[in-house]
Amino acid sequence: MYTNLSRILHYNSAMDFLKLVQHRRSVRAYREDPVPPDLLTSCLEAARLAPSATNSQPWHFIVVTDTEVRSRIAELTRLPGSRMNAFAAQAPVIIAVVAEPPRLVTQIGALLQKTPFYLLDIGIAAEHLCLRAAEAGLGTCMIGWFDEKKVASLLGIPKGSGLHRRRVSLLITLGYPADAPREAKRKPLQSIVSYERYGGEGN
Amino acid sequence: MYTNLSRILHYNSAMDFLKLVQHRRSVRAYREDPVPPDLLTSCLEAARLAPSATNSQPWHFIVVTDTEVRSRIAELTRLPGSRMNAFAAQAPVIIAVVAEPPRLVTQIGALLQKTPFYLLDIGIAAEHLCLRAAEAGLGTCMIGWFDEKKVASLLGIPKGSGLHRRRVSLLITLGYPADAPREAKRKPLQSIVSYERYGGEGN
Repeated sequence: MYTNLSRILHYNSAMDFLKLVQHRRSVRAYREDPVPPDLLTSCLEAARLAPSATNSQPWHFIVVTDTEVRSRIAELTRLPGSRMNAFAAQAPVIIAVVAEPPRLVTQIGALLQKTPFYLLDIGIAAEHLCLRAAEAGLGTCMIGWFDEKKVASLLGIPKGSGLHRRRVSLLITLGYPADAPREAKRKPLQSIVSYERYGGEGN
Repeated sequence: MYTNLSRILHYNSAMDFLKLVQHRRSVRAYREDPVPPDLLTSCLEAARLAPSATNSQPWHFIVVTDTEVRSRIAELTRLPGSRMNAFAAQAPVIIAVVAEPPRLVTQIGALLQKTPFYLLDIGIAAEHLCLRAAEAGLGTCMIGWFDEKKVASLLGIPKGSGLHRRRVSLLITLGYPADAPREAKRKPLQSIVSYERYGGEGN
């Protein structure tokens, strides 16, 4: 019921961006209901359209729905003896976000600037996916902690060569939320914004 | 005229997320018109609400409008003899995105995972800002190439200490677009998505 209702409420109704941002939460409890293929595709489409340094689009998304593979991936996100990431096994979809080699000029720029730009790009594309999911009434959670080598091997991800090895940067769980996730707490605006100089006040 | 019109068209009209994503472009030509403070604040608010690893919110935004400081920053984004980033001097606002130290547990996790999670977080928050700007009819461009030391010194950014030094990860130009930016080209969906395994087809 809730699932269908939330689809009707969200899927075709445009939300203003600040509301959408507040609506997106890290969802750590999922219903079993599968994600409709058209919604899944629209989430991937949102990621596809993301901007990136020199438009390298250094990403690849592996959509895992197979029960067996999902539960093995979920196992690889656990810390022994901890409940951390236990929810991952519930999600009907896990998406592995693979960092692909950016353009050579971007790799060189990243080295000189000492900032691996591709991670900014991956964050942006992953968030596009999560925001589109939120708009459609779906829940997501980004997971950065997992046994990368074993996930890469499980999903048959080739290592790549040269300056930039292929990496698995993130896992994203996707599905209908099982309950209302807790509200996100954020620092107040005045503590994260300065005017003209660091620590400067104004406005 | 265009400016006011675009504000009327965009500011109060919710856009569906895929349309908003397509509407956002990297804008490299700006009008002189200042950015209204309420719109600027709503862009910062969108960034403030961004998710981050362990909710560290490892960011600080320095809003620069002073003509002299802006032109010095713009100068620091140039490659000698190149036209690259020449547009930065035009933008009425430049926002320096400073990476603040994340929680210690996140720093340790990032080291063990060999992924500096804070860059994913910075990418997400910066994109929130840019998407809110796009919704409001404003243009933005993220600039990753600049003389970080000189920018940090110019803006009085303290180095910080310990495991994580404070960094300037990005500059974002902000203002009303002077012309219609070119359309963004993206790879087709089938080249960036696999099902079940890397390179796997389906659906």
